[in-house]
Amino acid sequence: MISEDELVRAIRKVLSGEAPGVVVPVGDDAAVVDPGGHHAVLTVDTMVEGVHFDPAVAQAQDIGHKAVAINVSDIAAMGGSPAYGVVSLGVSRDASPPWVMELYGGMREAADDYGLTLVGGDTVRADRTIVTVALLGRVAKGRAVTRAGARLGDRLVVTGELGSAAGGLQLAQAPSDRLKASLGTDWGRELVGALLRPVARVGEGETLAQAGATAMIDISDGLALDLSRLCEASGVGARVSLAAVPVAGALKSLADVVEADPLDLALHGGEDYELLAALPAEAVEPAASSLLDRFGTSLTPIGEVTESDLVAVEADGTERPLEPRGWDHFA
Amino acid sequence: MISEDELVRAIRKVLSGEAPGVVVPVGDDAAVVDPGGHHAVLTVDTMVEGVHFDPAVAQAQDIGHKAVAINVSDIAAMGGSPAYGVVSLGVSRDASPPWVMELYGGMREAADDYGLTLVGGDTVRADRTIVTVALLGRVAKGRAVTRAGARLGDRLVVTGELGSAAGGLQLAQAPSDRLKASLGTDWGRELVGALLRPVARVGEGETLAQAGATAMIDISDGLALDLSRLCEASGVGARVSLAAVPVAGALKSLADVVEADPLDLALHGGEDYELLAALPAEAVEPAASSLLDRFGTSLTPIGEVTESDLVAVEADGTERPLEPRGWDHFA
Repeated sequence: MISEDELVRAIRKVLSGEAPGVVVPVGDDAAVVDPGGHHAVLTVDTMVEGVHFDPAVAQAQDIGHKAVAINVSDIAAMGGSPAYGVVSLGVSRDASPPWVMELYGGMREAADDYGLTLVGGDTVRADRTIVTVALLGRVAKGRAVTRAGARLGDRLVVTGELGSAAGGLQLAQAPSDRLKASLGTDWGRELVGALLRPVARVGEGETLAQAGATAMIDISDGLALDLSRLCEASGVGARVSLAAVPVAGALKSLADVVEADPLDLALHGGEDYELLAALPAEAVEPAASSLLDRFGTSLTPIGEVTESDLVAVEADGTERPLEPRGWDHFA
Repeated sequence: MISEDELVRAIRKVLSGEAPGVVVPVGDDAAVVDPGGHHAVLTVDTMVEGVHFDPAVAQAQDIGHKAVAINVSDIAAMGGSPAYGVVSLGVSRDASPPWVMELYGGMREAADDYGLTLVGGDTVRADRTIVTVALLGRVAKGRAVTRAGARLGDRLVVTGELGSAAGGLQLAQAPSDRLKASLGTDWGRELVGALLRPVARVGEGETLAQAGATAMIDISDGLALDLSRLCEASGVGARVSLAAVPVAGALKSLADVVEADPLDLALHGGEDYELLAALPAEAVEPAASSLLDRFGTSLTPIGEVTESDLVAVEADGTERPLEPRGWDHFA
């Protein structure tokens, strides 16, 4: 059995340690960092084996990468950028030391991708693998974008396409012959990739904040549910044009293979980690050009902020309530 | 079944939210805080049901309080003070909503005790209760005390008394009639209290830092093991006078009831959360007076920093190696 100190020493090697602003790196009672005159953005998120990932589908490196990326996404949704992170890992007795090291390797890879430094952590024994990442990010003073500022008449916009990760989850749960066949296709790899390796929209979030976003949230639990949270926090309603929702193209191919409703996945599936923002109408076009030019990311207007209620507008103009249904870890 | 949003709303009510320096409180994608020109101290620690606590012995409020306190202790060991925290809670299906709320109540109580603000969190479904707290503390720029600065000839000092929590654990695991009888005594309550409600030495840590501590660590895994970590980080050895080790008085009474070796518990038992520091010889007496005057906390010299090796000196002058054995969560 590997001892705690042995594991900790091995882990330290894959964590980043030294970096600008790191005063005391990983390895002491706590890390010391210099936030350098910015406001600090703090967030924490946990992934549990069997709830948030299936080790039969996700490789250790994917799990580690995603555990960091979903936290980065929360900082992006504030208009901030990630800087430092600490990790708490619950390790099951089934987990081999190489598997655990690969998991840390994935975290390190994500840290490099997003330009943050992992400065510490804690490893405990648990029944299943459970990965908690807490991040400290930076945002210019007074510039954080909350969920609470959306104003009547603002346009609602989303980055990228929606539903891919939920489609990937459906594919991962499909009978193994169909899954295998799908992984040989571009669309299949795209969907499973969206599930296993979500991308946090850091530059996009900063750009939307600079463009005057009045409210912003990352779509981790599905567009409808996260929109309802933004509206509740802002004390407003929303009208969403269903034809405008950017449904991921690969979901059409998925629907040919398994029973799947692309629009439903885009509205109510979770884990897209795209950003939903409210923008003054005149800011939408410049922000969309900027996102496309700078990051190759699309920005799609999907509706507008209203006084109250969540309403979905069908292509033929029919209106119906938009149910705030989404991913509930407790359901 | 309580939904995630319902639980989150209930939890927000017991979290602190507004406080000086809190720009965006709990309830958004991430919290935003103002570190106010200090260096930031970051730490994370997890407590797992069945590994770090037994819900048959510890009440929910104790568990929550301790989950915060042990993190505060890590910040105290850097010479810093805690400021903001985020919580990630894994909730088992057995946990009732009132029990979970009490656990958060304990965290809130600890937050109030230590003057920190809980600004966010995440709740997930898990097999057992698993509580992760990440804290952001402050330390004056350039003033953090690491494990790595101990110098030849420095005196080794510890705050308070050692072994109580390990004694409390032994008592908690004793046959229930003996445990019950012991809880009717002052010494029994003291030991179990030390286990369930450890006290982080924040003011003491700041005072030791100001007094010129060259290295510091909190004794979470036992004096011998944590001393070996401090020595390893500093590249030094230590000589500890066993007769000087401040063994908790209540352990004598424990040894009358169950088989227990007070000195062994003080050297190798874990979870004391006292501070071990290296101080220049001339700084010991003034620091000890200051700790006693300001906090009523004793400071005991137990030995000195040497070139290499960990040596225990018996009362009769005999020397033997001090085994760096302690609490290993993986053992």
